[in-house]
Amino acid sequence: MTYTAPLQDMIFVLEELCDLEGVAALPGLEDASPDMVRAILEEAAKYAGQILAPMNRPGDLAGLGFADGKVTTPAEWKPAYQTLVEMGWNSPSADPDHGGMGLPQLVNACIQEMFQGANMAFQLCPMLTQGAIEAIEGYASDDLKHAYLPKLVSGEWTGTMNLTEPQAGSDLAAVRSKALPEGDHYRVSGQKIFITYGEHDLAGNIIHLVLARLPDAPEGVKGISLFVVPKYLVNADGDPGARNDVRCVSIEHKLGIHASPTCTLSFGDNGGAIGYLVGEPNRGLEYMFAMMNNARLNVGLQGIGVAEHATQAATAYATERRQGRPSDASNGETIIGHADVRRMLAVMRARTDAARGIAYRAARSLDFAARAGEAEIRAAHQRRVDLLIPIVKGWSTETAIDTASLGVQVHGGMGYVEETGAAQHLRDARITTIYEGTTGIQALDLVGRKILRDGGKAARELVADIRATAALNDAEPGTLAGDAADQIEAMLDWLLGQEPRIALAAASNVLEMFGLCVGAWVMADAAHAAAARISAGEDSAYLQAKRRLARVYATHVFPRARACSSAAMAGTADILDLPAADLQLAG
Amino acid sequence: MTYTAPLQDMIFVLEELCDLEGVAALPGLEDASPDMVRAILEEAAKYAGQILAPMNRPGDLAGLGFADGKVTTPAEWKPAYQTLVEMGWNSPSADPDHGGMGLPQLVNACIQEMFQGANMAFQLCPMLTQGAIEAIEGYASDDLKHAYLPKLVSGEWTGTMNLTEPQAGSDLAAVRSKALPEGDHYRVSGQKIFITYGEHDLAGNIIHLVLARLPDAPEGVKGISLFVVPKYLVNADGDPGARNDVRCVSIEHKLGIHASPTCTLSFGDNGGAIGYLVGEPNRGLEYMFAMMNNARLNVGLQGIGVAEHATQAATAYATERRQGRPSDASNGETIIGHADVRRMLAVMRARTDAARGIAYRAARSLDFAARAGEAEIRAAHQRRVDLLIPIVKGWSTETAIDTASLGVQVHGGMGYVEETGAAQHLRDARITTIYEGTTGIQALDLVGRKILRDGGKAARELVADIRATAALNDAEPGTLAGDAADQIEAMLDWLLGQEPRIALAAASNVLEMFGLCVGAWVMADAAHAAAARISAGEDSAYLQAKRRLARVYATHVFPRARACSSAAMAGTADILDLPAADLQLAG
Repeated sequence: MTYTAPLQDMIFVLEELCDLEGVAALPGLEDASPDMVRAILEEAAKYAGQILAPMNRPGDLAGLGFADGKVTTPAEWKPAYQTLVEMGWNSPSADPDHGGMGLPQLVNACIQEMFQGANMAFQLCPMLTQGAIEAIEGYASDDLKHAYLPKLVSGEWTGTMNLTEPQAGSDLAAVRSKALPEGDHYRVSGQKIFITYGEHDLAGNIIHLVLARLPDAPEGVKGISLFVVPKYLVNADGDPGARNDVRCVSIEHKLGIHASPTCTLSFGDNGGAIGYLVGEPNRGLEYMFAMMNNARLNVGLQGIGVAEHATQAATAYATERRQGRPSDASNGETIIGHADVRRMLAVMRARTDAARGIAYRAARSLDFAARAGEAEIRAAHQRRVDLLIPIVKGWSTETAIDTASLGVQVHGGMGYVEETGAAQHLRDARITTIYEGTTGIQALDLVGRKILRDGGKAARELVADIRATAALNDAEPGTLAGDAADQIEAMLDWLLGQEPRIALAAASNVLEMFGLCVGAWVMADAAHAAAARISAGEDSAYLQAKRRLARVYATHVFPRARACSSAAMAGTADILDLPAADLQLAG
Repeated sequence: MTYTAPLQDMIFVLEELCDLEGVAALPGLEDASPDMVRAILEEAAKYAGQILAPMNRPGDLAGLGFADGKVTTPAEWKPAYQTLVEMGWNSPSADPDHGGMGLPQLVNACIQEMFQGANMAFQLCPMLTQGAIEAIEGYASDDLKHAYLPKLVSGEWTGTMNLTEPQAGSDLAAVRSKALPEGDHYRVSGQKIFITYGEHDLAGNIIHLVLARLPDAPEGVKGISLFVVPKYLVNADGDPGARNDVRCVSIEHKLGIHASPTCTLSFGDNGGAIGYLVGEPNRGLEYMFAMMNNARLNVGLQGIGVAEHATQAATAYATERRQGRPSDASNGETIIGHADVRRMLAVMRARTDAARGIAYRAARSLDFAARAGEAEIRAAHQRRVDLLIPIVKGWSTETAIDTASLGVQVHGGMGYVEETGAAQHLRDARITTIYEGTTGIQALDLVGRKILRDGGKAARELVADIRATAALNDAEPGTLAGDAADQIEAMLDWLLGQEPRIALAAASNVLEMFGLCVGAWVMADAAHAAAARISAGEDSAYLQAKRRLARVYATHVFPRARACSSAAMAGTADILDLPAADLQLAG
């Protein structure tokens, strides 16, 4: 049930795999010196470990109240949110001009992983606010920025993203909500579902970002505009005033994240909610796409955070629980002495570490893509971001589910009892492969937009980097990275030689294969860096463990990549040729 | 949310893969003619589909009441249980001499799969009663049989198995409960946890089978005896009389099976519960082991039932839900037209079908092992049962979790909302890899007791049978079976050449590999049988689907077997050499 932010691993990954020094040399990030970063992460770790984690299980148990359109969060939520705002943790990478800390995305990734890992149901609120900030910062008029940004950045107000409608889950072309012009604003109406923290009692105002259609808008995705619709209209003095025409009509009863309200919001039941256009008409989806990388990175980090929490909890349990006679007395008398328990824990740890390395490398490229001096370097990093994000989102979240499920298994019967908290990790993690685009959608994005569209260019750049790791004079990591590069290359050759219809139908297996291979690269680099530090005289148990875990990854996690490649290359036609009727036969 | 027993597939598997005619020719099973079996299964399907399935979600929602040591089941439970008893479904394979239907284990497997699939939380009660019946039938004195069997067989009373104690989860050597002799009975005291249906309001008496130690018993597993401890003592007239000294002190708050009470029972708080020794002193664990095959088969069937239910629900949802434009219009406008949705459904279906085939073949061998005329045939089938049971238990239950989780994914956001029922399948399935011996314990059983102990004899007999399928003149199934036989053989050679310590540490990967390979054999046989029927002029969509699903199994499920083999053979040392301390570093 305890969570300790994995600071040692985070800092190792920042320094050894993500060139923290290079990031801190980027314009605007000069304050992010290693010492400063360490100090910030230590503070964040305290908030995560001492405030967020202890209220994770109570929040799950208490759940949410809902009456008369009002949502009541668990008792611990309000003071914790207040502390978040006071300490400036609401939006660590927001622009200092609007009151943010201006931290690198790379450092923010660590903080988000910690907070999500400690308490995913709580941290969803700031996560959504960060999305709203990004939308307004990036595309709204100065007036809107002035009116909304400072209070969103501080956390005095929170934000939401309103995309989904009952008839349109992942398919935004089907959005039907309407916005009618009226003076300097619009009247927005329609129903939105699955709105995270769409209503709650933590903040003085809730700023909804809403996708809706103008009267003259073209059909489909090219006719969707983005609006700011505040819960309370903002007075001339900047304070919340009259209630706007939006209300929460219900909240969902969900498998997990019980303390995170998932709301159905009704806009415009009494004439239309007052909303303000963000940017230009009909470009709402484009803005959403531009924000997608950060949003998907954040969900990936959620997955990693929950996987880390589950791994720590299972390891702690296995260290304390006595049962049977472990075959290997050197590991003590508790169940961690059983080889199969160590296997499960090692797989959990290796997958979590691999997912972290991939995600942080994506975050690092976000910083370079936004700030590097040379346009060519910015563009190269943007390509890398675009390639990695569906892998981060898709693979980290599947990793979270598998890891949390193994965590239940390590706990045995106690894992099935809610008391231990192991089951909550599985319940919470289970949403991460669904929202912000399902794994299947990440896979289509990876194959269609990120591989086929540029003829494999970005992917071949990645292969070149993996080959560089393979070429290092370090036998085991070199072999692992070389194998990963070979498999990606073979897959690229295959994909680029297929009709798009076949390549896309293979996408989910391609995504999993990429996750496993890029994870192999990261683990190989980590093992090599650990060896270098050991050779340089540093000798810690952590560095030795990093080497051994790379080996566990190579033997126990990575081999599944070939199964994915083989399913994609040899089996996609079997899926395409399978009539729906075959599946509809009732046995 | 609907469940329809997969009668067509069940009967196909009985006839084509399990030699139903041969089973019906065994002494005592002559009534099990194909027509009779079909009629029985059709009736059972009605009870499953019309009574058990509709109360599955209401039961999950209502959960259990607990006050003053009494457990209240959901409102629907009592009438459904009454119907079960009246229709004779409580114990379909019990001996007719004690009022049972005397059906083959093979046919009972179908019935259990249906009932568990329709409503696992409910069917756990009869499942535990069947265990108690088997213990008493097999090992108790005639007096005990006379007093308890008829009412357990009818279901007027229910049964429980009391093994686990707080300090001893899977490790029965640590059992501490005591039994002191007193006249013709014993006084039993101790605390037992995780007792399924240990207390409830469905029946007039509850007959607890309890493991405890006699005063002079040796330490460890050789000093454990088995006792019958009724909730109400049985009067001379056979009716329940005075309350015995056993009470339910709490029930667990669990991830799933919310309507199945998981009780902590306290025996002997007031001087000792009156109990009766079953069989001989100190042989309790031996009796438990002898009953293990049926109990583990039943949990495997639970997994298959839940996987079937999850697959049906996801397929129905995908058939109705419209979203986006499916690339392949021939499959309709709903999401089943998306290739990736069909991939998920096909993997769910193929794994479920494979698990069913393995489990029913194990059940068939139970019948032959018990009843075949020749001792040699009986012994060969017993070896097959012993080999297959850990695979059925271990692999069907992991299949259930993976399948139910894919079912949530197919439902998208709606899968995370409890309303659709998809999440319940995952929550319910999650216990099946834990109770009746975790997957890790099944794996140790498979490798240690079932492969190493007889020098691979039973496993090589299995390989020979798989080779026979490979030799059939049917290209694709032949290749699939041949590949499976090769992989098992290579694994046997490796296992038998290792120190036992290494072979056992590899066990979980070996188990998964066996599951995938034996599943391949079953799917290959099914594809071949379907082809034979098609050649014989029968041409149904079902038979064509069976062929295509075997191909999906070969390309999308089976390839993971190589990853398991490779982890076992190349990576087990990495696990054995991994110090617990590596895992205990807090990041």
